[in-house]
Amino acid sequence: RINSARLWDSLEDMAKVGPGIAGGNNRQTLTDADNQGRHLFAGWAKAAGMTMGVDTMGNMFFTRPGTDPAALPVYMGSHLDTQPTGGKYDGVLGVLGALEVVRTINDMGIKTRHPIVVTNWTNEEGARFAPAMLASGVFAGIHTEAYAKARTDLDGLVFGDELARIGWVGDEAVGARKMKAMFELHIEQGPILEAEGKEIGVVTHGQGLWWLEITLTGKDAHTGSTPMHMRVNAGLGMARITERVHQIAMAHQPNAVGAVGQVKVFPNSRNVIPGKVVFTVDIRSPEQGKLDAMKGEVIRAAHAVARDLGLGCEIEEVGHFDPVTFAPELVSVVRAKAEKLGYGYMDIISGAGHDACWINRVAPTTMIMCPCVDGLSHNEAEKISPEWAAAGADVLLHSVLEVAEV
Amino acid sequence: RINSARLWDSLEDMAKVGPGIAGGNNRQTLTDADNQGRHLFAGWAKAAGMTMGVDTMGNMFFTRPGTDPAALPVYMGSHLDTQPTGGKYDGVLGVLGALEVVRTINDMGIKTRHPIVVTNWTNEEGARFAPAMLASGVFAGIHTEAYAKARTDLDGLVFGDELARIGWVGDEAVGARKMKAMFELHIEQGPILEAEGKEIGVVTHGQGLWWLEITLTGKDAHTGSTPMHMRVNAGLGMARITERVHQIAMAHQPNAVGAVGQVKVFPNSRNVIPGKVVFTVDIRSPEQGKLDAMKGEVIRAAHAVARDLGLGCEIEEVGHFDPVTFAPELVSVVRAKAEKLGYGYMDIISGAGHDACWINRVAPTTMIMCPCVDGLSHNEAEKISPEWAAAGADVLLHSVLEVAEV
Ligand SMILES: NC(=O)NCCC(=O)O
Ligand SMILES: NC(=O)NCCC(=O)O
Repeated sequence: RINSARLWDSLEDMAKVGPGIAGGNNRQTLTDADNQGRHLFAGWAKAAGMTMGVDTMGNMFFTRPGTDPAALPVYMGSHLDTQPTGGKYDGVLGVLGALEVVRTINDMGIKTRHPIVVTNWTNEEGARFAPAMLASGVFAGIHTEAYAKARTDLDGLVFGDELARIGWVGDEAVGARKMKAMFELHIEQGPILEAEGKEIGVVTHGQGLWWLEITLTGKDAHTGSTPMHMRVNAGLGMARITERVHQIAMAHQPNAVGAVGQVKVFPNSRNVIPGKVVFTVDIRSPEQGKLDAMKGEVIRAAHAVARDLGLGCEIEEVGHFDPVTFAPELVSVVRAKAEKLGYGYMDIISGAGHDACWINRVAPTTMIMCPCVDGLSHNEAEKISPEWAAAGADVLLHSVLEVAEV
Repeated sequence: RINSARLWDSLEDMAKVGPGIAGGNNRQTLTDADNQGRHLFAGWAKAAGMTMGVDTMGNMFFTRPGTDPAALPVYMGSHLDTQPTGGKYDGVLGVLGALEVVRTINDMGIKTRHPIVVTNWTNEEGARFAPAMLASGVFAGIHTEAYAKARTDLDGLVFGDELARIGWVGDEAVGARKMKAMFELHIEQGPILEAEGKEIGVVTHGQGLWWLEITLTGKDAHTGSTPMHMRVNAGLGMARITERVHQIAMAHQPNAVGAVGQVKVFPNSRNVIPGKVVFTVDIRSPEQGKLDAMKGEVIRAAHAVARDLGLGCEIEEVGHFDPVTFAPELVSVVRAKAEKLGYGYMDIISGAGHDACWINRVAPTTMIMCPCVDGLSHNEAEKISPEWAAAGADVLLHSVLEVAEV
């Protein structure tokens, strides 16, 4: 078993870096706080005897050597970046849980045939630079590095510049590493495990996603002196499409979600009818058919609303992945280890996107989930118990040791 | 007749101060650009032989003496501040048209019994600091000076501090001046005069207004892993209320308008269900009954939407005036002068709020309107013709001379 108190202390120490405003974290990718968090983690990993590699996307890899120099390494990890008002465990548990696994096998003097690598993937959240899982996406060959490096945040700052600014452009080519397997431990970010009273989610699938960015163009005009029939109100269009996204997701229940998360209104003055609104749509389903259908329906609805109001409508696809099936042989290992360790477990589908979803394209991959209180995540009040964290890390430990061959 | 070319040149010169991004202006109140515009105007007014007074709200008064020291002055003016993406004529025409009237009577050596005062009112737009017509409202005793000075902008900057920063806190007590009459020349900001082919709007009434600020509080949560039935989506609430505001205004046609102009979503991240949205509602009608009814309906609709979605809902009243009836004796003067000068004219109701609406509470007041292309205002593309500007200033000239007694 891992050292639960040590894991919890590390989680608490990391949470001091980039504190939020309500007890959580704002350690958005490529900020000074991200840099600080990376150094804290790197210090711990080096103290655990591992050696660091960094690729040109800033992905961090810490290696514990195996006994067979020719054997492919077993990877485990997640991400240290957070939402602007994020929790202390989303991503962080997967990185520090992996670190705890290495600390534990160090303590026990265990040797493995395959090297073990602990990873921190850059910009998983996609909050500052869309899309999410950007750097694992480059690693898996989904995005070109040039595309990723040119992404901009709301202030127009460029990913490549910001990565260089915080000093984490490494020298490894992205995606050059070959993996025997990759495991990602993560909090569920949903309510199912807690409701079912299970400590461990055996993640068989991940749901697919479409991220759309819609720009509606109307005509700025005076809210008082412009008659109703002369208005070309981009704000009203945004409102109607927001409602339609909700209705479309509801119509595809169960196994479908949809929402508008980000809205920018121009000129955003109380006595000006909005002449332009840019907003984002997030729709997901674990079923390919539903995902495709919802995407089509949202696009058609947006154009219909825009036509009705006389608005210009441009729709950009800023993120997408199809539903994922994780490596069955690794899923079986996780299930067996949860059983052996005596934890309550169940099969589960990941509602969120994860680096594991991309890495699954280039290596056998799976995930291990633990519950979080009320299913709340992407919220500073995100909460887990030390026992849940320990259960997840224990299953990770035993799964990795099995695959890395003690 | 006024000097049309000189008026147009002044309008163009003022438009160089605080240029916008699309040919209009961003000369928001109490910015450096506002300060620059005030100095440009003050220079012109002094060159026209007038003496300046400034009150503690930064309202500027330039006096041309009359022949009878005991006679109450006749006022004319409007405002030089603009929307963030404002036009070149909204407000500016009323100030520089008044200046042109004085320049013209100077040229002609005309003496009046009553002094004539040209005014620039501080913060008419209300874009940066709500409510609109803030300083004329203090002048008319609607707001206390303490209330006005404590207003904050989106960045938390305080009205009183910003007024001091740009150096326009005068020494006159606000509202101490007594007026024989006040005239405000303004562009219509609506489509009626142009559609009817009239150069002059004889403004008999102004419509009333309510500005509400609604704060919806839900729960930040992950857009992917939070099931639809567990969401408390403040963004969806904002969307539904935006639609309801529109429907309520449509149900009260004609003589009713309503829209949401400003929306702030928190945390405004594409994979977070909005936990909080703050947005503004603007509803107006020239009919007291409709205005009151719409206000009640919007408030009830907002609470109903919030209840339905499980959202907290707070509604703040940030601006209000009842429908205005301008001074009939002055309205008659304007109508007679338009007739005498041979301009096409018609009675009209002001759709926008104006400083004249507040000053009407403390002195006989009316307005003169001229058309603007397509009724477009609060838009950088706002446009008028030099002929329209001249027609308005001509009617202002003759009306003021009549009341000021040549
Ligand atoms: N795990 C997680 O929250 N990832 C961010 C990408 C997503 O929105 O699913
Ligand atoms: N004239 C004008 O646009 N005033 C601003 C206040 C309002 O919104 O009516």
